[in-house]
Amino acid sequence: MNPIAITDLMAALNWRYATKSFDAGKKIPQDVMDALLDALVLAPSSFGLQPWKFIVVADPALRAKLQPDSWDQPQVTQASHLVVLAVRATLTAAQVDEWLARLAEVRGVTLESLADYRGRMTRFLDGMDDAQKFAWASRQAYIALGQLMTCAALLGVDSCPMEGLSPQAYDEALALPDSGYRTVVACALGYRSAEDKYALVPKTRYERARVVEFR
Amino acid sequence: MNPIAITDLMAALNWRYATKSFDAGKKIPQDVMDALLDALVLAPSSFGLQPWKFIVVADPALRAKLQPDSWDQPQVTQASHLVVLAVRATLTAAQVDEWLARLAEVRGVTLESLADYRGRMTRFLDGMDDAQKFAWASRQAYIALGQLMTCAALLGVDSCPMEGLSPQAYDEALALPDSGYRTVVACALGYRSAEDKYALVPKTRYERARVVEFR
Repeated sequence: MNPIAITDLMAALNWRYATKSFDAGKKIPQDVMDALLDALVLAPSSFGLQPWKFIVVADPALRAKLQPDSWDQPQVTQASHLVVLAVRATLTAAQVDEWLARLAEVRGVTLESLADYRGRMTRFLDGMDDAQKFAWASRQAYIALGQLMTCAALLGVDSCPMEGLSPQAYDEALALPDSGYRTVVACALGYRSAEDKYALVPKTRYERARVVEFR
Repeated sequence: MNPIAITDLMAALNWRYATKSFDAGKKIPQDVMDALLDALVLAPSSFGLQPWKFIVVADPALRAKLQPDSWDQPQVTQASHLVVLAVRATLTAAQVDEWLARLAEVRGVTLESLADYRGRMTRFLDGMDDAQKFAWASRQAYIALGQLMTCAALLGVDSCPMEGLSPQAYDEALALPDSGYRTVVACALGYRSAEDKYALVPKTRYERARVVEFR
């Protein structure tokens, strides 16, 4: 693996900002979008459990319907792509077994050899109620969100993370309840409009000494 | 901003894995570590509020003390660096004002011009109790965790996210309670040991069609 240059990484991180206005005419090329979906698929999650589903909303009518459920933010309809990050409404031993079956298949090992791992996962899940499980799974989705936004910037794609939405309205519009998943957060992806004044304001962060400490 | 090649991005994402055994003799060079700390500082957060602190634990005695509080995982002491991600125990209007003061300073605008933004933030925070605020802030920390692991891989640095720890024990060992922050998660950073058998097992994920849906 050849590392990229530090300067290229910093340039991308500094170029990224929460894009408020997208150029509705510019679409993300298929190979770039495929890479971003792979970045979601490859995102790390605790125990490798991947308690998530990523829904790419392409239908313009559906996106128009979602905009009022998203504090009326225009990114929902203007951006090239809208990705909704959803996670399991609950987590069960059956899901652990589904995951272990996949692991055994890919790694070519027996389920018996994964018994200890299974025990650690099920004991961990048994210690939580449904609300705690959903909170835990939601945090995992935010790892995927972080990886998605970082990768988008590196590929020259703008993004806007969107917490300001009605999860219930999204669930209903996307027909999620039957699937056992619930909306956590969304992310608009595309290209900044030349008119987005937020692209020009200086990036503002607390100074490093304010947020990083050494022990 | 020059995008990196898709192949370089995918190579890094596929190279990354949750490193179980680090080479204790290999340290991350200062310029690379500085870039990773900048990646944390530049991580996106809701409202830009950065409700976090990143604690780099360097003292070997402190890391030895933390290992039993981390399911005795050897990464805590073997990895080149251990970063603890902590967030505010609560979120207050005073913190919003601190953030707005920084924003006004960097952007060269008046506080008055940020009044609407202030109202949106304080109304959002007022709608949550302390537990909900902590859960919300914790999710933001997971964005930073995601960005950190992605950037580490791109720079050829191995990482291991660590949820399996006692936040209370970490808080006490790091003297966090007085600062108003609480431990959420940690991340070990360094270089994989040649003996880590997990480096060689095939990366396992559900198939894309299983986790990505189109609407």
